[in-house]
Amino acid sequence: MRIGDLSRRSGVSVPTIKYYLRDGLLPPGELTSPNQAQYGEEHVQRLGLIRALLDVGGLTVAAVREVLAAIDEPDTALHKMLGVAQHSFAPSATLPDSAELAISEARIAALLERRGWQVKPDNPSWRTAAEVLTTLRRLGFPERDDWLEAYGAAAEIIAEADVTATASAFTRESMVQALVVGTLLGDALFSALRRLAHEDASSRRFPPAD
Amino acid sequence: MRIGDLSRRSGVSVPTIKYYLRDGLLPPGELTSPNQAQYGEEHVQRLGLIRALLDVGGLTVAAVREVLAAIDEPDTALHKMLGVAQHSFAPSATLPDSAELAISEARIAALLERRGWQVKPDNPSWRTAAEVLTTLRRLGFPERDDWLEAYGAAAEIIAEADVTATASAFTRESMVQALVVGTLLGDALFSALRRLAHEDASSRRFPPAD
Repeated sequence: MRIGDLSRRSGVSVPTIKYYLRDGLLPPGELTSPNQAQYGEEHVQRLGLIRALLDVGGLTVAAVREVLAAIDEPDTALHKMLGVAQHSFAPSATLPDSAELAISEARIAALLERRGWQVKPDNPSWRTAAEVLTTLRRLGFPERDDWLEAYGAAAEIIAEADVTATASAFTRESMVQALVVGTLLGDALFSALRRLAHEDASSRRFPPAD
Repeated sequence: MRIGDLSRRSGVSVPTIKYYLRDGLLPPGELTSPNQAQYGEEHVQRLGLIRALLDVGGLTVAAVREVLAAIDEPDTALHKMLGVAQHSFAPSATLPDSAELAISEARIAALLERRGWQVKPDNPSWRTAAEVLTTLRRLGFPERDDWLEAYGAAAEIIAEADVTATASAFTRESMVQALVVGTLLGDALFSALRRLAHEDASSRRFPPAD
């Protein structure tokens, strides 16, 4: 198909497609004349992936480039691929090192120990989780281990379901894509479902007066 | 304390504090002379809340203003407050209405029905969840109801823990703050724990070759 049809099929405007082509996010089409190229289904798929990473995942163009490079690298092992995804999507640390932060890191370590999770110390989410706990403490939230434990139990249920869904994908490419996109879109889906469940739990606990 | 001490206590620079004062995010201090004001503990607390909403929650200054106004309004009922928080934090719809989106909305409705959640149709997270499902389908993900069900089960565990933690707060103000901040920081905490659980589940399912 020509670039105009690719635009209609993907819902991405022609100038934006040209920008992705120049930028290397989208592989070039097959030249049929010096000024005209043909595009295929793989371009429609790739544009969908780029838009999902940018819009739903909230990634920068630079992070999208990194993720696509990892997807396109045929030698990336699946477990390593997850590592690339984790590092690309981890928010950068915003709190400086402190004794307070070290206490939060120890709380996360104790949670991992209780639940028997095998996690390397360089996983950046360890720091992120500790920073959130520190911020909650600074805002005067009580430190409830039963609350943290519920979050751990829920994360375990979802990780198991994610990995099962990933393992059921047919091709290696779709497995890698499932890992990367599932990580981002899964966050968005879960945050929405959590808000729906909140409305239900809150209306039972704090019944509106009407 | 003077503005310099407030800056040291809160970790927020003096120019930024002045900007929040001009912008009405931070209530004015008590004037002790025409050019000098005294600030109290409530200013330290409020600055911590503003930074948490901006940095960890990723809200815009306009959204922070809306949330603070709701917190400061003494007549806001708790359940209604949750509604304000939900609407402020909901990403705006990015997909146009379509038959495809209607199918996804029906899948979310069926999930809510199975789990017995009481949720009003105008909760914006309904649309967000349906948009994520639609995006996943467009990217070629298999539509697994067992996967969606696991997300629902996990959301239920967390909503229950969140509401229990909120109900244990001592004052009405801290309850309201727990609802608002807990919604945002809870997302950040959960997303980090999910990545830690992913590493564990993935290393068991796809053992690295080494």
